Amino acid sequence: MSERQRILSGMRPTGPLHLGHYFGVIANWLKLQEEYDCFFFVADWHALTSEYADARRVKGFIPGLVKDWIAAGLDPEKCVIFQQSKIKEHAELYLYLSMFTPLGWLERNPTYKEIRAELTHKDLNTHGFLGYPVLMASDILMYKPCAVPVGKDQLPHLELAREIARRFNHLTGTEALPEPADMLTEEAKLPGLDGRKMSKSYGNSIMLSEPIEEIAPKVRGMKTDERRLRKSDPGDPDVCNLYPYHKLMTDPARLPEIREGCRNATWGCVDCKKVLMDSLERFLTPLQERRAACTDERAAEILALGNERARAFAAATMDELRSILNY
Amino acid sequence: MSERQRILSGMRPTGPLHLGHYFGVIANWLKLQEEYDCFFFVADWHALTSEYADARRVKGFIPGLVKDWIAAGLDPEKCVIFQQSKIKEHAELYLYLSMFTPLGWLERNPTYKEIRAELTHKDLNTHGFLGYPVLMASDILMYKPCAVPVGKDQLPHLELAREIARRFNHLTGTEALPEPADMLTEEAKLPGLDGRKMSKSYGNSIMLSEPIEEIAPKVRGMKTDERRLRKSDPGDPDVCNLYPYHKLMTDPARLPEIREGCRNATWGCVDCKKVLMDSLERFLTPLQERRAACTDERAAEILALGNERARAFAAATMDELRSILNY
Repeated sequence: MSERQRILSGMRPTGPLHLGHYFGVIANWLKLQEEYDCFFFVADWHALTSEYADARRVKGFIPGLVKDWIAAGLDPEKCVIFQQSKIKEHAELYLYLSMFTPLGWLERNPTYKEIRAELTHKDLNTHGFLGYPVLMASDILMYKPCAVPVGKDQLPHLELAREIARRFNHLTGTEALPEPADMLTEEAKLPGLDGRKMSKSYGNSIMLSEPIEEIAPKVRGMKTDERRLRKSDPGDPDVCNLYPYHKLMTDPARLPEIREGCRNATWGCVDCKKVLMDSLERFLTPLQERRAACTDERAAEILALGNERARAFAAATMDELRSILNY
Repeated sequence: MSERQRILSGMRPTGPLHLGHYFGVIANWLKLQEEYDCFFFVADWHALTSEYADARRVKGFIPGLVKDWIAAGLDPEKCVIFQQSKIKEHAELYLYLSMFTPLGWLERNPTYKEIRAELTHKDLNTHGFLGYPVLMASDILMYKPCAVPVGKDQLPHLELAREIARRFNHLTGTEALPEPADMLTEEAKLPGLDGRKMSKSYGNSIMLSEPIEEIAPKVRGMKTDERRLRKSDPGDPDVCNLYPYHKLMTDPARLPEIREGCRNATWGCVDCKKVLMDSLERFLTPLQERRAACTDERAAEILALGNERARAFAAATMDELRSILNY
């Protein structure tokens, strides 16, 4: 490994990625892989916190997630792509850090309270769910990253990981676990097809792997500026749900024309959607080609290679920590 | 391994064993090793639940614990003697079972409440301490024992392990984790030198490894029947603190004479203590000879051999459980 600083981030394997994931998370990872030693992991043990009663489903999502990452442009030559549950050291560190983590820190965790309130149809009141930030701290601290790219909602978890690191360092009189900094990624700028947050559960998403011909009717049905009732009414791109898509995927040189056409009512929402459909096709085609080229075997190979590299790093960290704890 | 049924039990490495441990726990293990495939383990990860802030101390107690076991008569040819933290599978199963265990089950655990109330000088309010019965369930269920020898105080933990097994089996639609039965061991019959429960922290113990010459003054200072003020007063062996020692360590043929002498005041407490001192010497000498023969290297070798056997078993269980969970 080079001497670049490390970054770590992960995603749960819970289904195919959509454009919201791409622009909200992955686009940032693509930049990071050029500048840092990046560890990106499939958080399949984390998936258990909510899916334990239906654990067998999780595995089926893993190859797809890896393929979505490769489709999006992650390069296994540049970053380490691995699967959490294959690195047993994460479970061992979870056990150790579990001993060091005061219950109060976990009970105060705002995300804990929120998710419990949201997922009322599942029995999430488990020891593992309460300990989810401890597992996350183990994943992070294992690789001693300089920073962790997070959205605002994950900040409390990262702060907790730092508190756990501080407590471990303090009680062992070492600096074994460096505190990772926040690397706040900009909030996803891409709304769902209906204007709400893009989310699989709202059915308002475009998946990275979705066939172009299935996307077309979705785009035709997209909400636009609701005050523009007729084509002859002037529209406002800044309140239109379509325009953020153009900003992210249409050739920037065409944006002034699109804004003007909407404002002057010289171009209608149907025209606008046709252009967007072209943009989406141009954007998604190379991704989908890369995805098609990544067979199940190739996805497994990428994980196997990444697991090996992650395991070597994790084993070294655990050797160090065990020696500090005299275990 | 033979087709005998399995038994599992463990002890935390927190200091040298005393006669209370011997008669309360180990004497039972000695019988069990003749009839069952026994797994006896050094619970060094459990020690962390209370010792995490001073973790480095734990390791120092491990060779002594193994030597005490060997001294007492455990036979590494007959049973598997292993060290918990060397079998990483325990941490992995802890993580899985942690996901399956409702918080309420842990919060209701009476031992949890008790120990927290007792150890007020330590900050035990951690995720790991709350999860101690989950770790214990992992230790137990890993080896699919038919039963676990427990004292009354451990019954709630064993019941919790069974509840966790039932929940796992129910949610996975399997019978992967058999429910171990209680094997209630008789309560320790040996009081401490002062009549209270024998405990290192009361300073009222005789250690298995204690030099005979250091035991003599302790025996001379032992409390006897408090109503017997003079040698000419008749005593009552059934309320005397010395008599339980005779019952366990003096030649049974001599017991009637001892009871009579005490009751008739034909024999004084000093005589009685001299006989006990002989009995203790006869009892402890062979133990201490076995202990002396067990070098540090031999203790390490015993653990290494046991770890290998335990690891093979644990690896097979985890393979099975991962395949059930599709992980």
